[in-house]
Amino acid sequence: MSHRRTSVRCQIGPVSVGGDAPVVVQSMTNTDTADARATADQVAALAAAGSEIVRITVNNRASAARVAEIRARLDEVHGIDVPLVGDFHYNGHTLLNEFPDAARALSKYRINPGNVGRGARHDANFAAIVQAAIDYERPVRIGVNFGSLDPELLDGLMEENARRPEPDSAGAVVREAMIMSALSSAEAAEEIGLAHDQIVLSCKTSRLQEMVEVYQQLAARCDYPLHLGLTEAGMSSKGIVASSAALAILLQQGIGDTIRASLTPEPGADRTLEARVCCELLQSLGLRQFRPQVTACPGCGRTTSTVFQQLAQQIEQHLAERMAIWRTERPSVAQLQVAVMGCIVNGPGESRAAHIGISLPGTGESPKAPVYVDGQKVATLEGDRVAEEFIGMVDQYVDANYPRVAG
Amino acid sequence: MSHRRTSVRCQIGPVSVGGDAPVVVQSMTNTDTADARATADQVAALAAAGSEIVRITVNNRASAARVAEIRARLDEVHGIDVPLVGDFHYNGHTLLNEFPDAARALSKYRINPGNVGRGARHDANFAAIVQAAIDYERPVRIGVNFGSLDPELLDGLMEENARRPEPDSAGAVVREAMIMSALSSAEAAEEIGLAHDQIVLSCKTSRLQEMVEVYQQLAARCDYPLHLGLTEAGMSSKGIVASSAALAILLQQGIGDTIRASLTPEPGADRTLEARVCCELLQSLGLRQFRPQVTACPGCGRTTSTVFQQLAQQIEQHLAERMAIWRTERPSVAQLQVAVMGCIVNGPGESRAAHIGISLPGTGESPKAPVYVDGQKVATLEGDRVAEEFIGMVDQYVDANYPRVAG
Repeated sequence: MSHRRTSVRCQIGPVSVGGDAPVVVQSMTNTDTADARATADQVAALAAAGSEIVRITVNNRASAARVAEIRARLDEVHGIDVPLVGDFHYNGHTLLNEFPDAARALSKYRINPGNVGRGARHDANFAAIVQAAIDYERPVRIGVNFGSLDPELLDGLMEENARRPEPDSAGAVVREAMIMSALSSAEAAEEIGLAHDQIVLSCKTSRLQEMVEVYQQLAARCDYPLHLGLTEAGMSSKGIVASSAALAILLQQGIGDTIRASLTPEPGADRTLEARVCCELLQSLGLRQFRPQVTACPGCGRTTSTVFQQLAQQIEQHLAERMAIWRTERPSVAQLQVAVMGCIVNGPGESRAAHIGISLPGTGESPKAPVYVDGQKVATLEGDRVAEEFIGMVDQYVDANYPRVAG
Repeated sequence: MSHRRTSVRCQIGPVSVGGDAPVVVQSMTNTDTADARATADQVAALAAAGSEIVRITVNNRASAARVAEIRARLDEVHGIDVPLVGDFHYNGHTLLNEFPDAARALSKYRINPGNVGRGARHDANFAAIVQAAIDYERPVRIGVNFGSLDPELLDGLMEENARRPEPDSAGAVVREAMIMSALSSAEAAEEIGLAHDQIVLSCKTSRLQEMVEVYQQLAARCDYPLHLGLTEAGMSSKGIVASSAALAILLQQGIGDTIRASLTPEPGADRTLEARVCCELLQSLGLRQFRPQVTACPGCGRTTSTVFQQLAQQIEQHLAERMAIWRTERPSVAQLQVAVMGCIVNGPGESRAAHIGISLPGTGESPKAPVYVDGQKVATLEGDRVAEEFIGMVDQYVDANYPRVAG
């Protein structure tokens, strides 16, 4: 893994982004912001799933009018201090001016420099949002997105490129336009008076290689903290795969201070998946520890019974449920590594490498399941109660090795 | 993206691995190999999902006795020439000797050098499998796995390390043992008489950073084609995230000639997910094109109706269904890019960038959905039949732009 890129540290409510702060997980609600209760509930669910910053759209007066109530609900009903970011397009300058309680309730404002109006209005609207950030002492994210790239900037660069003796490809000009949009907007914000450490940048596109190249260049050309995202990653496994791949490549190069996975939920699906995916990614990369990890083999013709799949699932569910309490009581339990393996081939080896592991018998093996604790075989389970007994041993291990913190 | 590592090309039945061949998708069955019908059915399902090589365990006589029948079923019932790889542990030398029809039906033998016996038996058993590969003109994969790492080799390296004035960390010795196990086994196979281009290597571990480091070193120290895998990646999104991240990091560095995602299926879940994830990964990275891509936004408070989620899902399902026919009739349709977007913010921009895209109206927007084809707005849909009409336009676009190949 490369050394982490050097960036300034930006404070977003209680959460630090950039500098030597850990890489932070973000997410966004898809409730109607004007429905304060539903939005606060979803923010709370996203926070419980691991999101450390949550963005909400503030798209009209009805939404802006309820932002303070959402904040109050989180503080008072849910007891959650997760910072809220307001996502503004087209009318942020108006809404932040008309709703000072919303401006105060938000911990950061996202400005899309492609969506603040055209020509002279662009500069005035942009300045108005930045002035609100200065007045309320809030940072901003200058969030460029391929789908809403400033057309005036892009057209200008395209014309300039066409006049060159050896023009760049159209793709290279688009990438440069995205980076320029972010950097020139940041420069403009600082000229208006925003502090250098009050700015986070992002340049999202939906094509992985384009996204990787844009962020690599952006990372080299500034020291603002960077918010990473593959935008519009899509649905189901494809969205997870593409997001994980894109973010992993950059994070492995030391690029990225905060991340989001822009997954399209299937109809009726749980919005919190995008937060869980980010936690799983950071933990897989060894950058953060959010919850105990379960190593489980894929199974093969040696493991035709589904016993080990069921046990792996039961353990996952058990750990997820307990983690709700452990998170505050025993935060160090996030380091725990459990193995649930399906046969003799790699079972004992992986089980020994975990803190606690079980190697279930494959087809034709003797129906005994050795359990290993810290590399030593401590028991052999068999019969109908293997799952309960192993789960009991996991709980015992947690009690003995991850003591309660004083609270 | 880095230049691809140089490797020799190895032929596995009709499929090339390494050299300038595209990165190939592999998977493994979890049916009992002795159940020839179930195994052939699952191999066929995995192949239909994009797996270009399928491994089956050959763990005992009952399994070995049915391998030829599985091959025959694939050829005759399913009409699928996907090569089969036999996964051998402990008794491969015996089974390949006793079941010559199985040896012939398999296109590659996987040898785990940690599971061929200890001491003198290790070398004799290993040699017997390699001799079978020579006799039947089959390549082998020397597949090292952390969970079954040769304990004699590891102990020897640990002792040697302990005697050094400045010993390496235990982790570094484990990594070296994995690499040594692969390289010294390959050397031994060549000494027995196997050709240099008949060997594929893998060194799988379940910890991402360890796996990345092992493969980076292995890649630098030989020119055998490499099979990549994060072993025992685990269940549900965690397994997909960790596999995608690990494989993406290496593939982006030009390392890897064939891949597998070792996902633990949830009880009752479809085994083909591991093949689909590999296809999605290679396509996201721009390395392969398997099927049309759908760019869909994650939705937010601007898109409270689930209309766009449903349309994105309908389009995905429609394309997946059609692809079964298009794969042979119109293979170039794999290049098609479709966008299904939920509101005005990035909707028109992304829709213009796709071959065909629709930008659905967000909350409060006029209920009209502009459709873009090759960057131009060609229609505006509204009413209850938006989905059907858009799907019809996609089919029309395919007809016009991806002609049938002569067959």
